[in-house]
Amino acid sequence: MIAEKMKELVQGSSVIRAMFEEGKRLAAIHGAENVFDFSLGNPNVAAPAAVNEAVIEVLENLDAMQIHGYMNNSGHEYVRAAIAASINAKFGTRFSQDNIIMTVGAAGGINVIFKTLLNPGDEVITFAPFFGEYRGYTANYDGQLVVISPNTVDFQPNLTEFRARITPRTKAVIVNSPNNPTGVVYSADTIRAMAAILEEKQQELGIDIYLISDEPYRELVYDNVEVPYLTRFYPNTIIGYSFSKSLSLPGERIGYLVVPDEAADHENIISAANIATRVLGFVNAPSLFQHVIARCLEVKVDIDVYDRNRQLLYNGLLSSGYECIKPQGAFYLFIKTPLDNDIEFCHLAKNKNILIVPGTSFGCPGYARIAYCVAYDTIAGALPGFKELLEECRDR
Amino acid sequence: MIAEKMKELVQGSSVIRAMFEEGKRLAAIHGAENVFDFSLGNPNVAAPAAVNEAVIEVLENLDAMQIHGYMNNSGHEYVRAAIAASINAKFGTRFSQDNIIMTVGAAGGINVIFKTLLNPGDEVITFAPFFGEYRGYTANYDGQLVVISPNTVDFQPNLTEFRARITPRTKAVIVNSPNNPTGVVYSADTIRAMAAILEEKQQELGIDIYLISDEPYRELVYDNVEVPYLTRFYPNTIIGYSFSKSLSLPGERIGYLVVPDEAADHENIISAANIATRVLGFVNAPSLFQHVIARCLEVKVDIDVYDRNRQLLYNGLLSSGYECIKPQGAFYLFIKTPLDNDIEFCHLAKNKNILIVPGTSFGCPGYARIAYCVAYDTIAGALPGFKELLEECRDR
Repeated sequence: MIAEKMKELVQGSSVIRAMFEEGKRLAAIHGAENVFDFSLGNPNVAAPAAVNEAVIEVLENLDAMQIHGYMNNSGHEYVRAAIAASINAKFGTRFSQDNIIMTVGAAGGINVIFKTLLNPGDEVITFAPFFGEYRGYTANYDGQLVVISPNTVDFQPNLTEFRARITPRTKAVIVNSPNNPTGVVYSADTIRAMAAILEEKQQELGIDIYLISDEPYRELVYDNVEVPYLTRFYPNTIIGYSFSKSLSLPGERIGYLVVPDEAADHENIISAANIATRVLGFVNAPSLFQHVIARCLEVKVDIDVYDRNRQLLYNGLLSSGYECIKPQGAFYLFIKTPLDNDIEFCHLAKNKNILIVPGTSFGCPGYARIAYCVAYDTIAGALPGFKELLEECRDR
Repeated sequence: MIAEKMKELVQGSSVIRAMFEEGKRLAAIHGAENVFDFSLGNPNVAAPAAVNEAVIEVLENLDAMQIHGYMNNSGHEYVRAAIAASINAKFGTRFSQDNIIMTVGAAGGINVIFKTLLNPGDEVITFAPFFGEYRGYTANYDGQLVVISPNTVDFQPNLTEFRARITPRTKAVIVNSPNNPTGVVYSADTIRAMAAILEEKQQELGIDIYLISDEPYRELVYDNVEVPYLTRFYPNTIIGYSFSKSLSLPGERIGYLVVPDEAADHENIISAANIATRVLGFVNAPSLFQHVIARCLEVKVDIDVYDRNRQLLYNGLLSSGYECIKPQGAFYLFIKTPLDNDIEFCHLAKNKNILIVPGTSFGCPGYARIAYCVAYDTIAGALPGFKELLEECRDR
């Protein structure tokens, strides 16, 4: 009885559900403390105290209609103005509240902008490895996701293939940096080269191509790595931001889109995005948390926790003999699996009570993702198992 | 550059935006207190104190990960169990947490269930007058909205036409009672007759037809009118509920779907709805407000405020000579416009600084909607203008 499109999605997601079930089953047999679950990208660092303080302050100082009532579909004006000012101060941009649309997380924002832009058959390019949900988001609007094959040297985008695969149907490119699943940050050089290709192809084909930057991990970077602000490099850029990770509020669904004045047709895009927000059923981003994040724009979670995990995991795996790139951001580490078949490798890992996700899920076979947003002890406890696993694979 | 589908929506919504702008323009000229804006269905009664007390209680007693973290896409288990228990106690149903999916308001819930059920070309029947957003929600999934013409005698659904227009492509029927824009509650007799037609047609055509009940106004009823609980009448019923009006939390986007075990293919529907929640970008209903509403399930706003408005407006219009049905619920009153052309009538009303919405927007020309979720004084102040307006229309 359910829609045909949903049947495929239900089937596809049963793999992930199976992993969940497996985790539960293993925990029941071996005890939860002996199961090393690295499968989920859920923040494990609590929201900073400033968040709940802001909630209290809002409840004390605003009236109930302001706190909980409807507002413009784009969100509260003063919140959007505060966000614009914060971005401007950090990146030298010149946004106003009119460039900001509050969204139900980054996932909501990406859906709103895809709904706004995509006609059936329009192509959206992304770079493997990529966040698998982009398939669903694109399919929602009958777009075609075009996946550029991975550059496994350093996991910067493969720009040669990118250039070759831009067509008159290319409507958008979606990038995610710091990247899920590699933790790699796309460098300013990469972005500059990508922008040059986009400019060249726009001119050659006489079309506009929007670069959509999905940025839930912007604030989670280590060793003072800089994450380029993409509107500075390419005018047709739209940013999708989320506070899910920066403030550990993934359940609250709060984020925003930035549509710069420089973007082609920006007025229509903003009008349409407002309507898309309504017609998709979001209506507006949750009101109380709009007020809250306006009071926490310069606050972020204690990323030292993630950084300690990163060091322990990276050094531990490296010394065991695994091949991997040191992540610069997010809370993921992407290893080359010692078996070519990454799905088989992840199955073997389960025998060590280690749950990780095959690279195939991210369009990058032969690799696996380890989400290190877990307790430090979970990593320490899993390292011997990882080592044994590598040795067993070598013996095969 | 924006999608073709969005171009129509942008054009359509410019009418509503024009109304907004007009309201602002009038307020600037005549002073906000002299403009009688009945155009928006925004609650004007503040959330009960219990809501903010619940927020504080949650902040004090749950840890940050529970409050703000991710959970199952369906929502927190204990919240869903509490909702199921509350419905069961009121309506003698036998739901469990497995039948409840938390949603981003009712609008989010309707989108999730349409995404779950509709194949392109599937028909969704609704009864005029109806909430205009159903057009957009249906079009999101390439469904066809089939509008049954209004029964202007008592604004109960026109069931004769309904029976005639059910086809093999009919996938769902969406009803909204208490109704926006009429304030009418569909009676138990109506629902019983509707269910009988659906049962008969299901059998005749060998299909399943889902009855979707959009219930943001369930708790807003007057004179002890009962709102039938539709799962009691027809097994293939899915409920979309919202706390936007019952607790005056429209900006917080919190509601739920009920998918009963009796509904055909309910297991697949629940699995698919969970995935639809994720893939549409909602991911989950806002977490803090899930916790909050679990603590406020038996609380509601002071509806006496709306009732006093209702009495003043209804009696005032009636004694001026307007024809209208006394609303039993919600905060809308639907008048027969003294000109056949309801759009022209609403334009004339603007000359009296009165903003109301033409029935044409709800698929019911010759009528107009007055949203009385406004200050009592706004109604009192507008009544002389309504009277003059009627007299002027009669003189034409």
